[in-house]
Amino acid sequence: MILVLKKGLDQRRIDDVRERLQQLGLASESAQGFDHMLVIVAGDASTMPAHLFTQIEGVQKVINVSARCPLVLSTTGDNFALAGQATGLVSELPLIIAGPCSVESEEQILETAQAVKQAGAHALRGGAFKPRTNPYDFRGLGDQALVFLANAGRLTGLPVVSEVMSAEQLGRAHDYIDVFQVGARNMYNYELLKELGQTRKPILLKRAMSATIDEFLQAAEYILLEGNLQVILCERGIRTFETRTRNTLDLNAVALLKTLTKLPVIVDPSHGTGRSNLVRPLANAAIACGADGLMIETHCRPATSISDADQAVTPDQLGEIISQVKAIARLLQPQASSSAPPAVQPEQKVLIRQH
Amino acid sequence: MILVLKKGLDQRRIDDVRERLQQLGLASESAQGFDHMLVIVAGDASTMPAHLFTQIEGVQKVINVSARCPLVLSTTGDNFALAGQATGLVSELPLIIAGPCSVESEEQILETAQAVKQAGAHALRGGAFKPRTNPYDFRGLGDQALVFLANAGRLTGLPVVSEVMSAEQLGRAHDYIDVFQVGARNMYNYELLKELGQTRKPILLKRAMSATIDEFLQAAEYILLEGNLQVILCERGIRTFETRTRNTLDLNAVALLKTLTKLPVIVDPSHGTGRSNLVRPLANAAIACGADGLMIETHCRPATSISDADQAVTPDQLGEIISQVKAIARLLQPQASSSAPPAVQPEQKVLIRQH
Amino acid sequence: MILVLKKGLDQRRIDDVRERLQQLGLASESAQGFDHMLVIVAGDASTMPAHLFTQIEGVQKVINVSARCPLVLSTTGDNFALAGQATGLVSELPLIIAGPCSVESEEQILETAQAVKQAGAHALRGGAFKPRTNPYDFRGLGDQALVFLANAGRLTGLPVVSEVMSAEQLGRAHDYIDVFQVGARNMYNYELLKELGQTRKPILLKRAMSATIDEFLQAAEYILLEGNLQVILCERGIRTFETRTRNTLDLNAVALLKTLTKLPVIVDPSHGTGRSNLVRPLANAAIACGADGLMIETHCRPATSISDADQAVTPDQLGEIISQVKAIARLLQPQASSSAPPAVQPEQKVLIRQH
Amino acid sequence: MILVLKKGLDQRRIDDVRERLQQLGLASESAQGFDHMLVIVAGDASTMPAHLFTQIEGVQKVINVSARCPLVLSTTGDNFALAGQATGLVSELPLIIAGPCSVESEEQILETAQAVKQAGAHALRGGAFKPRTNPYDFRGLGDQALVFLANAGRLTGLPVVSEVMSAEQLGRAHDYIDVFQVGARNMYNYELLKELGQTRKPILLKRAMSATIDEFLQAAEYILLEGNLQVILCERGIRTFETRTRNTLDLNAVALLKTLTKLPVIVDPSHGTGRSNLVRPLANAAIACGADGLMIETHCRPATSISDADQAVTPDQLGEIISQVKAIARLLQPQASSSAPPAVQPEQKVLIRQH
Repeated sequence: MILVLKKGLDQRRIDDVRERLQQLGLASESAQGFDHMLVIVAGDASTMPAHLFTQIEGVQKVINVSARCPLVLSTTGDNFALAGQATGLVSELPLIIAGPCSVESEEQILETAQAVKQAGAHALRGGAFKPRTNPYDFRGLGDQALVFLANAGRLTGLPVVSEVMSAEQLGRAHDYIDVFQVGARNMYNYELLKELGQTRKPILLKRAMSATIDEFLQAAEYILLEGNLQVILCERGIRTFETRTRNTLDLNAVALLKTLTKLPVIVDPSHGTGRSNLVRPLANAAIACGADGLMIETHCRPATSISDADQAVTPDQLGEIISQVKAIARLLQPQASSSAPPAVQPEQKVLIRQH
Repeated sequence: MILVLKKGLDQRRIDDVRERLQQLGLASESAQGFDHMLVIVAGDASTMPAHLFTQIEGVQKVINVSARCPLVLSTTGDNFALAGQATGLVSELPLIIAGPCSVESEEQILETAQAVKQAGAHALRGGAFKPRTNPYDFRGLGDQALVFLANAGRLTGLPVVSEVMSAEQLGRAHDYIDVFQVGARNMYNYELLKELGQTRKPILLKRAMSATIDEFLQAAEYILLEGNLQVILCERGIRTFETRTRNTLDLNAVALLKTLTKLPVIVDPSHGTGRSNLVRPLANAAIACGADGLMIETHCRPATSISDADQAVTPDQLGEIISQVKAIARLLQPQASSSAPPAVQPEQKVLIRQH
Repeated sequence: MILVLKKGLDQRRIDDVRERLQQLGLASESAQGFDHMLVIVAGDASTMPAHLFTQIEGVQKVINVSARCPLVLSTTGDNFALAGQATGLVSELPLIIAGPCSVESEEQILETAQAVKQAGAHALRGGAFKPRTNPYDFRGLGDQALVFLANAGRLTGLPVVSEVMSAEQLGRAHDYIDVFQVGARNMYNYELLKELGQTRKPILLKRAMSATIDEFLQAAEYILLEGNLQVILCERGIRTFETRTRNTLDLNAVALLKTLTKLPVIVDPSHGTGRSNLVRPLANAAIACGADGLMIETHCRPATSISDADQAVTPDQLGEIISQVKAIARLLQPQASSSAPPAVQPEQKVLIRQH
Repeated sequence: MILVLKKGLDQRRIDDVRERLQQLGLASESAQGFDHMLVIVAGDASTMPAHLFTQIEGVQKVINVSARCPLVLSTTGDNFALAGQATGLVSELPLIIAGPCSVESEEQILETAQAVKQAGAHALRGGAFKPRTNPYDFRGLGDQALVFLANAGRLTGLPVVSEVMSAEQLGRAHDYIDVFQVGARNMYNYELLKELGQTRKPILLKRAMSATIDEFLQAAEYILLEGNLQVILCERGIRTFETRTRNTLDLNAVALLKTLTKLPVIVDPSHGTGRSNLVRPLANAAIACGADGLMIETHCRPATSISDADQAVTPDQLGEIISQVKAIARLLQPQASSSAPPAVQPEQKVLIRQH
């Protein structure tokens, strides 16, 4: 349960609200929402009569969260704009993030950055630290890649997205990377999510291979609970019995998430299919069912890619995909894709601040 | 392996080809293709040198089928047109099949037929025999429903699609129904598939809940092997760990199937999601990734539906969906949706005739 | 909801009970239970006050079935003994059914029958009609195999178990086969289940590849509802993401089923693993968690088996498995395995007779 | 590919071997095996002729690892004894680890430790840091719990097992905990695995919810590659479509793992079923198919357990389970369970030391 407080309450009166809750046997935390202070009531208060809470002085509204991730479900405003403004991600929708699976060399990432920008992408992805099922596979160039990425980003003006897998890597990457990616293998790594919640950069959170939608939202909740609202949800395919594709893209999830949360939802058709010839039709499908953007593995010479060569498209193919998905987006939401997102006021940047 | 014979070979020369194969230790069957006689080589001949086969007199071409369903993969021509012409299904693409889960009464199915026709549907669906997990649930009106369906079809000019679950039901339904549906629970019911292969009406084959794409194609192969080429593949959602939706629509499968076979591929977003508010976005997605059509549960008063009430849309909503998917189809394939499919000559109706 | 009537009610008084239900707005069916007539109340009566039913004259007890398969859950008595007595299946527990995947020749099935009997098996399995995913694979010897099986059964005294896939095959097999098997692919084939419910021979019902336990029980309910109580449930592995084994044996299901129903539960570790070297440990595990028996694919020369060669054990290996599982059964239930099951009176053979 | 070197080679001659590999275009690492130095060849050398390697001076044997986790598959010796000796875990088989889901208080963990020791357990488990899907659930007592656990271990003489989820938690727990557990959610957390590989305490590695067996082994490989050989594999149930149980215990995996690796394999029937009444039958099954031990959630008053109350057994029930599984183990491997494992020489403790 979340209590939305009236505007302008000072700290003493907020404390009064929490003291009243304590008398009811309920622990609580206060948090800074967009416009109002919030008091998050711990434990299950759903069986207690609502008027107990509405009558507390200073309480404007009671949000009864039956679901398990109240912050994710109740966030107000346009979080995508929020996430985007900080990084320059959102100039128009659908948002396109493109780049190679791994940063392979300084030349490669710069060449790719220029090519995907030319093709219409808004941000550059590239792996510096690579999670590999097989420990003998190439694990990425690490710190070197961070420098290459930052340079490519600076030279092209594209914000850069890259994965970190531990607090220690986060520390090393912090000053080079604009958006931190949580890979599918680490969606349940709650210690990492808490660390990322402490930063103030956008987090691109990938759904785990067999996660339910509720688990996905709860992972996002971990980040929001630490005060970082800028979470972008990314559907990247689930594990199924199918062997002809690497994963099975779950577009039900996308359409459903858009009804549940205002967090932006993007789709990775590259991992979602594992086959470059399926990227375009699934990218179309993703946008057609309401996704806010796409992350597409792009390589100037896919056949030579160190990792995930089968699923990378060329910059030319990326350009065709972008052109087609833009047309679909225009068709379905004429107003949404033509204009910039609503401006976000600086003071709204932090939804929740822990006390 | 399939040998495509030269045109105009008489039976004796066909027998010579098969005798030559027997000398190589290979059993075979002959079959009538669209334009050419085919000889289907049993067993695995893929390790034998190709010239052994190309040198056989009368052989024009060798199709090396590594996959396990040579007929499904090698069918030529536009099977959809073929399936459609016989029933009036295909006047334009995407094909829209709509109607209630179950036929509930004569009035209900006629009212619905008129409403879905008005909304732009090309065919009417309605369950007469209902497969129910729970034996105590409503199992359909049976024979009575067949009469109601046939009447509604006749009065509106819409071909009717309905499920049969056994040879015995097929016999009862044969003269009332234009397209026989195989439900997801019966995709592995090979005895039923063989019976349906003996008919000359189109078969709408739904994918089983956990079937791989290869198993789906092999089920279609059972029907084609009996001489009935008119198979429409229908993706209707797979079982996953998700509990917020009834099934998980697998659009990877749709895009992949379109690269593997010329059989038409349609999508059922109603069962694929189980939630009426997700039908529209997933219908859009299905067409955006290349599906040839949609099957959408439609009910004039969804809340009163005897079965599957949660997933039915109203005729008005159907109309909006049809309008949107047509726009997407036009955008992606301007030429395909505006014109009628190519004419099919009567003699091409049977691809394969067993000998 | 099921009403258990007092003993000795005549038809008129049974009708009175049902008429009273009708006045309450509830349809019903009467059925013959072991000792009492039953009245099965259709629809959901769980929200109505219980006394409405207990007060009806002639009603002894009300069974409130929250689950969806009241007959399966409420069957009383020892159904396994019942199933076994009719066929000679149950002379001791654990029950062992063994034999080849397919009947390949008269000599093969007779040699195998003698060998598995020698090894300690109680019944002979062998496929006459084979469901094959790939239509080009060997589909069984059909009618010929039925004759071979019946002969092998007669000569060795072993009852024979074989699969049928349609009403038509059931008719052909009826006089040759002692226990009809429903394969995993046909567990959802409700028309077949209803046909088998009309027979009075035991049915060995295999769980479908991705079926939940409730769906498994509901499939059994279809058979019981037609009046055939003699259903043996068989866990044979579920589909998972694992590729090193053919299926994943689900022994949770076995332990759980033993808490839910008195229907006998056996396990097929051959299909459950797909690897002959895993059959013995999983057979041990199955009996250790409470399974009533095993079905084990056995071939005198596994390497030459036409189908499923990788999972067949030799008669010698079968003998070792039987010896070990008997020791485990003795250890866990000293009394259960040493003595014959309780005698069953002939008049108890039919639990439910439809009216 | 792994080259086993002849005994007694000095560093210079080891370097010569690696230099020769470099001339062949192959990178390599050297590692200390039980009795021999090993050279691990990076990349795929499987297509190069074997004699290229056997002819290198100093090479005694070439292990051609087609699988992806050579260390896990090729470890020699009795790793279980090794893991056990360091901690006192292994006094007899099957190994029993028992205790509550969470450490709730000093009294609770001490009372439980005494009770499970009395019941026959060899080690105490208890959660200090709890990974929770729902961020609002109890996350464990943290540092306080570590102290309580260490005390309970010291007072009862039981080694203690507890989960850590990050390098930071590992640092805090290091001096209090004897065996570090990797939870199912962190099996893919390779950064954590590498940290644990740097320690010299045994690691209890739980399989992820939907991991394949190869992925499970590769996770273990990450730990071994850092030089920590003492990995205990723990099957704890996989995610399936079943909703009546929390997970589905995969005993195929146990039997298969015992054929693939010498790492010890234990089973957690508590998480594997999620229902306390299924723990005993599945514990029996686990030991019957070859598991080396069990981890069983035990609580003195299960109904009051803060977490996972449904799956905890009482110490009395634990005693019965231990008695039964010991009898099964004796029955199946009379020699294995009656005697202590073979002594391990101190110098063998580290299989692999990175250079």
